[in-house]
Amino acid sequence: MRRRQVTVIGSSDCGFVEEAYLIGKHIAQKGWVLISGGRGGVMESASKGAHEEGGIVVGILPFEKHHHANEYCDIVIPTGIGFARNLPNVLAGDAVVAIGGGAGTLSEIAYAWQFKRPIIACSFCDGWGRRIAAHPPDNRGGKIFEANTLEEALRILDETMERVVQYD
Amino acid sequence: MRRRQVTVIGSSDCGFVEEAYLIGKHIAQKGWVLISGGRGGVMESASKGAHEEGGIVVGILPFEKHHHANEYCDIVIPTGIGFARNLPNVLAGDAVVAIGGGAGTLSEIAYAWQFKRPIIACSFCDGWGRRIAAHPPDNRGGKIFEANTLEEALRILDETMERVVQYD
Amino acid sequence: MRRRQVTVIGSSDCGFVEEAYLIGKHIAQKGWVLISGGRGGVMESASKGAHEEGGIVVGILPFEKHHHANEYCDIVIPTGIGFARNLPNVLAGDAVVAIGGGAGTLSEIAYAWQFKRPIIACSFCDGWGRRIAAHPPDNRGGKIFEANTLEEALRILDETMERVVQYD
Amino acid sequence: MRRRQVTVIGSSDCGFVEEAYLIGKHIAQKGWVLISGGRGGVMESASKGAHEEGGIVVGILPFEKHHHANEYCDIVIPTGIGFARNLPNVLAGDAVVAIGGGAGTLSEIAYAWQFKRPIIACSFCDGWGRRIAAHPPDNRGGKIFEANTLEEALRILDETMERVVQYD
Repeated sequence: MRRRQVTVIGSSDCGFVEEAYLIGKHIAQKGWVLISGGRGGVMESASKGAHEEGGIVVGILPFEKHHHANEYCDIVIPTGIGFARNLPNVLAGDAVVAIGGGAGTLSEIAYAWQFKRPIIACSFCDGWGRRIAAHPPDNRGGKIFEANTLEEALRILDETMERVVQYD
Repeated sequence: MRRRQVTVIGSSDCGFVEEAYLIGKHIAQKGWVLISGGRGGVMESASKGAHEEGGIVVGILPFEKHHHANEYCDIVIPTGIGFARNLPNVLAGDAVVAIGGGAGTLSEIAYAWQFKRPIIACSFCDGWGRRIAAHPPDNRGGKIFEANTLEEALRILDETMERVVQYD
Repeated sequence: MRRRQVTVIGSSDCGFVEEAYLIGKHIAQKGWVLISGGRGGVMESASKGAHEEGGIVVGILPFEKHHHANEYCDIVIPTGIGFARNLPNVLAGDAVVAIGGGAGTLSEIAYAWQFKRPIIACSFCDGWGRRIAAHPPDNRGGKIFEANTLEEALRILDETMERVVQYD
Repeated sequence: MRRRQVTVIGSSDCGFVEEAYLIGKHIAQKGWVLISGGRGGVMESASKGAHEEGGIVVGILPFEKHHHANEYCDIVIPTGIGFARNLPNVLAGDAVVAIGGGAGTLSEIAYAWQFKRPIIACSFCDGWGRRIAAHPPDNRGGKIFEANTLEEALRILDETMERVVQYD
């Protein structure tokens, strides 16, 4: 029986360190595996939060070598496929939490929508995580849930993960 | 000396058939190679336009078999990498023309921006081609040019292709 | 500090169930993460062995959905990139154990060699795991270690993993 | 109606320049599109041969930029997916000609076999193109035709391309 997995997406160079950290902690407390792109910024902060709670942290890298991952990753998948790794990164999540984010995050949101992974869009952080809540990618029935506060994001994530079997 | 290449992106199931067709014709008249995702809708219409002008039409498919391409493709690359093919599809273009488009197109716009392929955003067609003109993916200096009419799109494309060497 | 990872490769439809199972058990006993392609045959048997020892088992699938993995995977990465996933599958390993195997395994061996992941080639099982020991892919200095018995395979694996930092 | 396509594979750093050049010429003379990995060695020589005959030459690169292709490519697909591009490279061929080759070529032969692209194995050049003729990847019914001379390679290629519709 596999574990439940949550992918956290967001920029490698932006703020929202505290929010990502707390979401990472929450994911580990629930016993879910944290998936991220394995790099800095939002990815590193979420990884740190999950790691400190003793959770399993997976980093899915664009590059070919393990050591490019942030130090909080327990398991590293150096894909060697460049930024095409944005696709496996979001496919791996039973749910995807979007915190801030620029172009890289935008491609991940688009893929998550296309493959019907539920997206928790943190509209309390500036970036595509906020903007996409107001502009769903298209009308083909992906799932985006807007969270106006951190507490709301955690609550929606909990509810979404209870329904995971639907998306599998 | 390689030929100049223009990628046309947009939905496989939407309208904007006439606009895509005329842009495809223009690309072939200029002697540029038309690149697309090789499927229906905008991709097929642009391919038809370029094909009728005797241009070279390339379809970059998600799938493993050549015959999934639309009938106007001269050259078919069945990538076998699923929708990760959105990355090579836009990387192949010296410029990218976005006509309408949903989630798939959105991931392509995001990749084109990330890798600094200039994007001609057709704001005269509804979809991400329009929306992205008002919301550039992030502040890292990709290039999006908004075109309010078909004529403007062709003019901006011509100007962009003259400067192609800058992006190579 | 990330955990050490071992990728086990081999066919989804062949024998060598017992050998793969015992190697999987050994990997978990050592505290290493087992990586595989997440499907049946050798992959499933190794996963079962590691799972029964309480190890962490990761399946890296070609497909888009989690439920295509075998039942012993704790963590599933549905890559969505088809059999291009053979590249991340072997890049993820600090070492790669090849047990039997046909064309899919052969592409994985070739990639492991190209990216200098050390390969333990089980010549006590028929297939590419055996044949490659006699025919290294080329002269560019990858690493293949031939194991003539299961015990030898485990011993070489242990020695290889002690030197992992060299390959990172 | 798309054009017929032949992928030529082989090392970027080995000999067999003359053989690859002549095969490239033949492909163009027949009106087929030459596909290759777009780099040096065998790829460049085949590209040069086809280019000089006025054929269309496509280079499918691992990298993100067009200018990494050899100078004889008319059309360049910079995939951005690293050496996972070995998969689209061989899938693009209606037939695959293997000339010499090391680990990279070996992964391409394995993929071509897996997806039933017919392989013309040039056993008159040392490398995997020769070795694979004696050791087909597995028993799942891919197609490898051994050619003992250049003339035989061209004859088998002609016969194979006449039957292309079977493989589509």
